[in-house]
Amino acid sequence: MKPWLLTLALAEHAVGLSDPNPRVGCLIVSADGATVLGQGHTQAAGGPHAEVMALRDAQARGHDVRGATVYVTLEPCAHHGRTPPCCDALVAAGVGRVEIAVGDPNPLVNGQGTARIAAAGIAIGRAPDDVALRARELNIGFFSRMERGRPWVRMKIAASLDGRTALPNGASQWITGADARADGHAFRKRAGAVLTGIGTVLADDPSLDVRLVETARQPLRCVVDARLDTPPTARLFDAASPPVLFTASRDAGRRAALEARGAEIVDVPAADGRLDLETVLDDLAHRHINEVHVEAGARLNAALLRTGRVDELLLYLAPTLLGAGRGMADLGPFESLAQGLAFDFHDATRVGADLRILARSPRV
Amino acid sequence: MKPWLLTLALAEHAVGLSDPNPRVGCLIVSADGATVLGQGHTQAAGGPHAEVMALRDAQARGHDVRGATVYVTLEPCAHHGRTPPCCDALVAAGVGRVEIAVGDPNPLVNGQGTARIAAAGIAIGRAPDDVALRARELNIGFFSRMERGRPWVRMKIAASLDGRTALPNGASQWITGADARADGHAFRKRAGAVLTGIGTVLADDPSLDVRLVETARQPLRCVVDARLDTPPTARLFDAASPPVLFTASRDAGRRAALEARGAEIVDVPAADGRLDLETVLDDLAHRHINEVHVEAGARLNAALLRTGRVDELLLYLAPTLLGAGRGMADLGPFESLAQGLAFDFHDATRVGADLRILARSPRV
Repeated sequence: MKPWLLTLALAEHAVGLSDPNPRVGCLIVSADGATVLGQGHTQAAGGPHAEVMALRDAQARGHDVRGATVYVTLEPCAHHGRTPPCCDALVAAGVGRVEIAVGDPNPLVNGQGTARIAAAGIAIGRAPDDVALRARELNIGFFSRMERGRPWVRMKIAASLDGRTALPNGASQWITGADARADGHAFRKRAGAVLTGIGTVLADDPSLDVRLVETARQPLRCVVDARLDTPPTARLFDAASPPVLFTASRDAGRRAALEARGAEIVDVPAADGRLDLETVLDDLAHRHINEVHVEAGARLNAALLRTGRVDELLLYLAPTLLGAGRGMADLGPFESLAQGLAFDFHDATRVGADLRILARSPRV
Repeated sequence: MKPWLLTLALAEHAVGLSDPNPRVGCLIVSADGATVLGQGHTQAAGGPHAEVMALRDAQARGHDVRGATVYVTLEPCAHHGRTPPCCDALVAAGVGRVEIAVGDPNPLVNGQGTARIAAAGIAIGRAPDDVALRARELNIGFFSRMERGRPWVRMKIAASLDGRTALPNGASQWITGADARADGHAFRKRAGAVLTGIGTVLADDPSLDVRLVETARQPLRCVVDARLDTPPTARLFDAASPPVLFTASRDAGRRAALEARGAEIVDVPAADGRLDLETVLDDLAHRHINEVHVEAGARLNAALLRTGRVDELLLYLAPTLLGAGRGMADLGPFESLAQGLAFDFHDATRVGADLRILARSPRV
């Protein structure tokens, strides 16, 4: 079990680095399990995968990996992408055994990497279920995109214990504490894209980048902005990479002003002034976004929830009662409780003074 | 450690039985720890305490307790109440050692029981901190009444994840599931009194008794009813014991009709039609209520919260978003987040499909 914990920890180093490639860790140990020979994790897209990094690490340390045992959190790839197949690298290295946490959901890989390693006479092992689950959870968005053709959509909401995200006068900074805000940035870091609405841009002028935790790459920052009301002076434009604005506006002047600031403007069909959000999410899937992190107001939250495409709620509840104020999502009024949007609790954990709740759609 | 777990489990048997006396468990084991000689827990008020029950149990089983070790979750009493002092019973029995989880907060007992046992040459031991904490938690209301002169006030609220306790049309049965409802009854069972408001009586016609779990005694059922609007036909009157109505009404006809149904009517001062809730809570303290279980609507909840006397929130959150609907407490509108009513998270536990959250006042 110990080597798996280490291998999973290696995989976590790929968060905020390897997207859209999966987060994979690889550990090579001597056949008797006594010595770590090499370790590695997926690098930035186009760079080496975890297995190659671990082989290189072993080589750099002067270790012979022939007959060694390889632990890898995802089935080694079998196709030529931007890098040669990892299964071939392991075979060529002459390792003795490969332990795999979870199969690759990529149809180009699925089972083939394992088959080619086994065909070379190398023993294959499987991780315990809890390790497989953690390896899969770490790549929940990659699995979603491979298996369902769409990103994992996580909706982050910070609220009081009675569900208020802001006072009636709009005050919302800060309902939750510093620890919860940093934890929220760790979830932003996981995401390939952060999505908000024009209401939030106008009210809070957020930069939407990852600041409170370190990251090697920033997520794509996206705004649902039907009328192109984003001010060219918004903080969104202060970051290194420009934002994407989804719109139905044909206002040439606004487009020009925003494009001059670097914005990428994506036309989306609309009905009654509301953008078709499935088109927005499909666009993000085409960009190979694994996880979409939604941080929006009650109106966009409700519209996204109504698409049925929100896979997970990430709630930070502060231990405070605010009474009157804004809600999480402008749903309803429903006539019966059965109309409520149902989720399943997945986790509840204290983060600083606040409570972090993960709830998932029963469809996932 | 094992004997303490057993002794705490014995103490739990006194829940729903011993009020207003504390929930105490007592285990007598042979000096070598190998044999359980006797066990007991506090009986109904006026009945024997845990120590006497355990001594009698040992006698009934034909065991000699001389030199034995006694585990007791609360310091043995030293005063003549409705029963003789337990410390004297232990001394007379000739036990060799007494292990005590937590000192008695009752000023008539505090330290005296221990002193009298020690004066008889019997060794005294103390439980580990976690056992002491659990023994105290089990009697949180008794400690509150002894140390602060007022009951522990617990406010139970069942809501959706976005803080809605009912739809706009009033529908609220059931937002949370059967397991959470039964768990809520287990908390009612702990309480000496269940308190609600006239709004809930008129909307839901609750019986407010303990039904979904077994109990030897029912809590006092109380209604804050400023104008005596409780219908004489309410389900409240169907139980074995009649309810208490707190009111400012002087309407002789209503009083007569409700008293004819058995209601106890308690006059409470009011201002602007709102009863003085501190008087209500003081009245419950005078009745030796240890824990008050509030199950009310947003209006009474807010009024109680504003007194600063709510010690604990007991929230059951269903994994559902309802959007529009009724809130937990009609507080605010606040102008700044600092005006929010602050609690501290104490516990979060899955109960069936729902999440049970305990949050406590930072003042406790």
